[in-house]
Amino acid sequence: MNADKIPDIIIGRLPVYLRALQRLADKGVLTTSSQELGELIGISAAQIRKDISQFGEFGKQGTGYSIPFLIERLQDILKVDRVWDMAIVGMGDIGHALARYNGFTNRGFRVSIVFDNDPQKIGQKVGDFEIFGLAVMAEKLKQQKIKIAVLTVPASAAQEMADQLVKAGVKAILNYAPTSLSVPDDVHVQYIDPVTHLQRMTYYL
Amino acid sequence: MNADKIPDIIIGRLPVYLRALQRLADKGVLTTSSQELGELIGISAAQIRKDISQFGEFGKQGTGYSIPFLIERLQDILKVDRVWDMAIVGMGDIGHALARYNGFTNRGFRVSIVFDNDPQKIGQKVGDFEIFGLAVMAEKLKQQKIKIAVLTVPASAAQEMADQLVKAGVKAILNYAPTSLSVPDDVHVQYIDPVTHLQRMTYYL
Repeated sequence: MNADKIPDIIIGRLPVYLRALQRLADKGVLTTSSQELGELIGISAAQIRKDISQFGEFGKQGTGYSIPFLIERLQDILKVDRVWDMAIVGMGDIGHALARYNGFTNRGFRVSIVFDNDPQKIGQKVGDFEIFGLAVMAEKLKQQKIKIAVLTVPASAAQEMADQLVKAGVKAILNYAPTSLSVPDDVHVQYIDPVTHLQRMTYYL
Repeated sequence: MNADKIPDIIIGRLPVYLRALQRLADKGVLTTSSQELGELIGISAAQIRKDISQFGEFGKQGTGYSIPFLIERLQDILKVDRVWDMAIVGMGDIGHALARYNGFTNRGFRVSIVFDNDPQKIGQKVGDFEIFGLAVMAEKLKQQKIKIAVLTVPASAAQEMADQLVKAGVKAILNYAPTSLSVPDDVHVQYIDPVTHLQRMTYYL
């Protein structure tokens, strides 16, 4: 296996497989097939088999996949066999919701620090977190060796914040601001913009 | 042009083009090139030209694309030259944030009604919205001819809610619950799960 050669589109499907497998495991199911998995997530069984076979031999014809084993391997491949600390930048409604979101647990991530630029918010608490100002952001991120940030600021402020995050050593940005970001090649950005998803569906309506 | 033959992966990129064009238009820019657009959004100029040419002749060699014209055509293609009413189901933190989100404006969508199953929440206000209970959901959705719903309930409740939405005539579901949904072929689902995006990035870290 040469990780560098796996197409990004396959990597993008692995978290979806992992999520479905974890839901099955939560129900106490121990084995599954590419057919069953495919029906759960709406991807063809052939595609699933092909994707998973990129990483080695997992299933046996007729007996299917061992769920705990496949979960462990996918967690290892996606590097979520550990817990990544994340910063949230922007404590508006979405920042608040994410700071309190319990869906990160057991999936490889935890929020560990939150920032905002509003003097009214700095020093306030959101759940267990004290909101820090941008003046101390670079220092705190470097100190805590945080590599992942969630950006929940207005579109107009997003690029400037991304630049500051990159300078502070952040390598992965989950961007909720409805705008594209320019970052160096070694920094990864993923976008969460509900409108792009909605527009993709209205095309078919 | 035969819309049915455009691959879904291209349709998925059109909202990203539209968003970037609208940001340029907001700054007063009137024309752009596939190069400029490509640099803004991190997609190759050749890919952009190829995608856009699926829908007809838009740009001229050397003069580029007229931004207002391309925006209008993309809005028309994606059917966001109108405003779609949406329901939000689930008034937790994320439901609240979306009910108050101002990023839908001018992009083809508005929240028009919100639901929750918690008797403590039913009848309360979220911004301008009264929270309605599930008992009246099907009736309200049919009455208001709502075709799009945003699902922000826990994973364990998501399939049951999706079934109710489909029965009430909803044809597009934006699902924030971290689980896959089974729906009939004529119903579209898009997923917003921050963890799948995060896991796609940690692979590369």
